[in-house]
Amino acid sequence: MNFKERLEKLKQQIEAPLLVVSQSNLFYLSGFRGSLGFLLVFPERQPFFFCDGRYILQSREELSIEAEIVEVDQDVVGSICKVFFDVCGDRLLVEDVASVGFVRRFEEKKCSIVPCPSPVNVLRIVKDEEEIALLKKAIAVTEEAFQDTFPLIVQGAKERDIAIELEYSMRRLGGEDVAFPTIVAAGERSALPHARPGYHEARKGEWVLIDWGAKVEGYCADLTRVVPVQEIRTPQFREFLGILREAQNVAQEHIREGVRAQEVDFAAREFLKKRGLAKYFTHGLGHGVGIDVHEEPKLGSQGETILQRGMVVTVEPGVYLPGWGGLRLEHMVLVEEKGCKILDSLPETF
Amino acid sequence: MNFKERLEKLKQQIEAPLLVVSQSNLFYLSGFRGSLGFLLVFPERQPFFFCDGRYILQSREELSIEAEIVEVDQDVVGSICKVFFDVCGDRLLVEDVASVGFVRRFEEKKCSIVPCPSPVNVLRIVKDEEEIALLKKAIAVTEEAFQDTFPLIVQGAKERDIAIELEYSMRRLGGEDVAFPTIVAAGERSALPHARPGYHEARKGEWVLIDWGAKVEGYCADLTRVVPVQEIRTPQFREFLGILREAQNVAQEHIREGVRAQEVDFAAREFLKKRGLAKYFTHGLGHGVGIDVHEEPKLGSQGETILQRGMVVTVEPGVYLPGWGGLRLEHMVLVEEKGCKILDSLPETF
Repeated sequence: MNFKERLEKLKQQIEAPLLVVSQSNLFYLSGFRGSLGFLLVFPERQPFFFCDGRYILQSREELSIEAEIVEVDQDVVGSICKVFFDVCGDRLLVEDVASVGFVRRFEEKKCSIVPCPSPVNVLRIVKDEEEIALLKKAIAVTEEAFQDTFPLIVQGAKERDIAIELEYSMRRLGGEDVAFPTIVAAGERSALPHARPGYHEARKGEWVLIDWGAKVEGYCADLTRVVPVQEIRTPQFREFLGILREAQNVAQEHIREGVRAQEVDFAAREFLKKRGLAKYFTHGLGHGVGIDVHEEPKLGSQGETILQRGMVVTVEPGVYLPGWGGLRLEHMVLVEEKGCKILDSLPETF
Repeated sequence: MNFKERLEKLKQQIEAPLLVVSQSNLFYLSGFRGSLGFLLVFPERQPFFFCDGRYILQSREELSIEAEIVEVDQDVVGSICKVFFDVCGDRLLVEDVASVGFVRRFEEKKCSIVPCPSPVNVLRIVKDEEEIALLKKAIAVTEEAFQDTFPLIVQGAKERDIAIELEYSMRRLGGEDVAFPTIVAAGERSALPHARPGYHEARKGEWVLIDWGAKVEGYCADLTRVVPVQEIRTPQFREFLGILREAQNVAQEHIREGVRAQEVDFAAREFLKKRGLAKYFTHGLGHGVGIDVHEEPKLGSQGETILQRGMVVTVEPGVYLPGWGGLRLEHMVLVEEKGCKILDSLPETF
């Protein structure tokens, strides 16, 4: 599905003009990669794209849809309202990720603005073939960088230095950015699920938890592995890691078209409960990944989305024991009609 | 001013409980560096800090204020409402950067929520001594990385490779992240004020525009320089760059306590108008910089803030001629009682 087809699909679904404010949704619909722009989509006519002077040339280069480009000065709301009143002027839908401060400025201009959950998010939840190809590209860069960096994960290596080398490698291999701040946590610090890499050194007999991913052509990868530093003396290490691998399998066995997202989380959690580890599994099982590293569907206890083929989600059971450390094993999987397919190919353990 | 003093100052300024949702404001008030947390500040009692299981241990490590930590499951709004109704229950202020979707969830729980411009932004606009020291640290890393990378800016170097090396260097020198996506634009592409670095090669006789900055201990730097690749044949290059340097001086001469931000922008713009270049200066003159790379005060035509000593702003006049290229020269300056002080020390031209 190309940008034009996405836009056409959106136009068919909206009953009133929609202001797209999410930069990820804007990229999905138009190809624009700047940090600030707005797309005003009408059900029955060509959209308007608003940006300031910094992005006028760039928008002409990057916009992959037919849109009327409007340069705005500092009063972007005024510019949007002017066009809106000229063309239509009735009811303006706006994505409800817009801030209340932003929406209030439309109300001050007597614009009848109606916040709504974005129909673009609904389109984005199922990935098309081009998107899956881009996700695979992002995963390939993510994995190759890990392999490049792997030899550096030795006794005495600092968390921070491992993260820096991993990120540098992802960039050189084609990543345009990291998909999210890299997590590298050695020893007990691995019990912090979202630890910022610091000056802690990996010690012999400890392990290093790494959660990392590249962004390539706008699409994110997100993987987690645990790497032992020489032989691990902690007896539970292999045991717990084995249980997490089983929890992975249990989760993957539940993933298929038609299943409710929360059922997958529940299955993995029940499995960990039987093994006495559920109380240490302090986050949801996974999340959709695409243009944003965290997007719909959420695989958590509140996840009511029915899985459809073409969704791409992480599956990342983990256990975190304060004072002992944490383990997490994260795959990216593609939902299929009768099951799922793991998109990454690194080993689960080392 | 330490975190406790900032919190006390805020408590004195609010007449009802305030929910802090901006992660930058949360860091400013508490020291918390995770990606998701909420601080519920009461005028007369200890605040509550809400985060999910991923950040419980980290919040205990990082929170530099006395706060009651509440672990939330997926219904963060429910958890906040529960505490709020228990303690007070009347009117809840929320920062108006909150999304309309988020605020609506409070309304659904019959919480009387009132969005308002954040009083924390007002506190943050003037930097204290510790903050100025951190900004200087960020600038030092930013400049040293530039010097490391400078020898690579030669004929045949790709924009993207220059950006990668610059970012890698900033990280190794102590930057925890880039303050914003690095801009490296060679040749005509420098006419895009916010170009993403691509595979374009720097050619002999062209120049490379670089806009970059490190984030160090939560504070951002933001500088721009233009580097010629061997001798520049374009006659206007030195002429226009000289005019921009004069525009810099004009702007800096107008910066002092008591001056309205827009007057500084106006002065630089009027100067460029006399030289026939104002129409190519397509963005505001500058912006505040601190925990966020773009914050108050804005030095633009709409900037009504009265400058106070202790504000730190960028001054970045630029000209962009499609088909020819662009030039920008950006300093970070500290507003003082009777003038301003440039915080960076790299040469203006090379």
